[in-house]
Amino acid sequence: MARFFVDSKDMEGSFLVLTGENAAHGKVLRLKNGDEVTVCDGQGQECRCRVSDVSPGQISLVVSSREASRSEAQVQVRVFMAFPKADKLEHVIQKATELGAYEIVAFPSARCVSRPDEKALGKKLERWQKIAASAAEQSGRGRIPRVTVLPGYREALKEAAQAELPILFYENEDACTLSMALAARPGFRTVSLMTGPEGGLEREEVAQAAAAGLRVCTLGRRILRCETAPLCALSAVMYAAGEF
Amino acid sequence: MARFFVDSKDMEGSFLVLTGENAAHGKVLRLKNGDEVTVCDGQGQECRCRVSDVSPGQISLVVSSREASRSEAQVQVRVFMAFPKADKLEHVIQKATELGAYEIVAFPSARCVSRPDEKALGKKLERWQKIAASAAEQSGRGRIPRVTVLPGYREALKEAAQAELPILFYENEDACTLSMALAARPGFRTVSLMTGPEGGLEREEVAQAAAAGLRVCTLGRRILRCETAPLCALSAVMYAAGEF
Repeated sequence: MARFFVDSKDMEGSFLVLTGENAAHGKVLRLKNGDEVTVCDGQGQECRCRVSDVSPGQISLVVSSREASRSEAQVQVRVFMAFPKADKLEHVIQKATELGAYEIVAFPSARCVSRPDEKALGKKLERWQKIAASAAEQSGRGRIPRVTVLPGYREALKEAAQAELPILFYENEDACTLSMALAARPGFRTVSLMTGPEGGLEREEVAQAAAAGLRVCTLGRRILRCETAPLCALSAVMYAAGEF
Repeated sequence: MARFFVDSKDMEGSFLVLTGENAAHGKVLRLKNGDEVTVCDGQGQECRCRVSDVSPGQISLVVSSREASRSEAQVQVRVFMAFPKADKLEHVIQKATELGAYEIVAFPSARCVSRPDEKALGKKLERWQKIAASAAEQSGRGRIPRVTVLPGYREALKEAAQAELPILFYENEDACTLSMALAARPGFRTVSLMTGPEGGLEREEVAQAAAAGLRVCTLGRRILRCETAPLCALSAVMYAAGEF
């Protein structure tokens, strides 16, 4: 079923109207009177609707039912990723959205080769948020994960540490596994998964993370690329949380 | 530590020689006498070696020790992927290798939009195998996963069904989860993970898979893209098998 995201204020009442890009998208899908669609506020609420009128530039809908989205994960996972090179962050935003991440947070660390300058950041964030919205729509999510950028490593640690279960993955850790960390916190509802850039994290950064309350874990004996690690960890956490 | 793959016949004896691409790569890494390197046969056996001589086009090594690779997963997972569009198969080969897949098998299914013609297949397979070799080297694996192409969907089902735990993922399945399938087979050592193309599998294909002995499972309530599903499933299986 086609899925449209609108502002929550445009989702009140029993009659909704799709306009702008949503109306254009509906036209591409050749929606006609009587067709069923889902309208979401991107915050986890959604309406089942029926098309009542298709006019140039707007599609009118009658709300049949309204409920909390069933496709959102019970567990809230925030993915903290050090700025990678090239378009890898875009890749991770798309995939982490499909996999059910609650938020994607990018931050600089000592060995980050690339980080967007402040001028470009506004436009980039807008682009990243669009990627998340489009992936949320395609994967049938009821919530668009927020994409956030933090100014420094310390800020990222502080933010990540807010979760019940904050985890940093480090390739030189070999004692503590993700499953040990998860087993130590049964019934966890909020998780932070933090990973480093291409060149890895510095030993001192790992010590800072531990001091900030993050659990330092391994993702196994194979070295994962910086764009593979967060998605592997997210898949495993969703599995462990009973999502599939 | 630098890692080089050689033919198993070139890994016999106490003195080894790197030539060709390996020697060129060693030169890029500026290897010098006394440096330690790992040499693997790509089949799970490896040698720790010390550089004893660097000459144009060849690097001589003395074997210090020889052992089975410690970075290979205990569980053998074969990833069966219906031909996707564009370069998505290359992406999956690279990532599945990092994540520890034993083999990657591509096959056609009813809704595959693209499938390589037979003429081009030889060259493509060679390219895909190189991607697997390079990802194996980068991730520190002792084994290069084989990349295989099967001529039809039935052949793929037959091959997948060889595993102790053959699983097909289908987006319209909502009763059986991956964790149920894994729990039904404690101590599993061989797994097949099969996923469809962009357009999904046809209902009849899913019935054929069930008849062939595959367990039909869901990957959760969010629709994953065809290149995301196998990597999500592989990550979860590796986690469930105790790899991290």
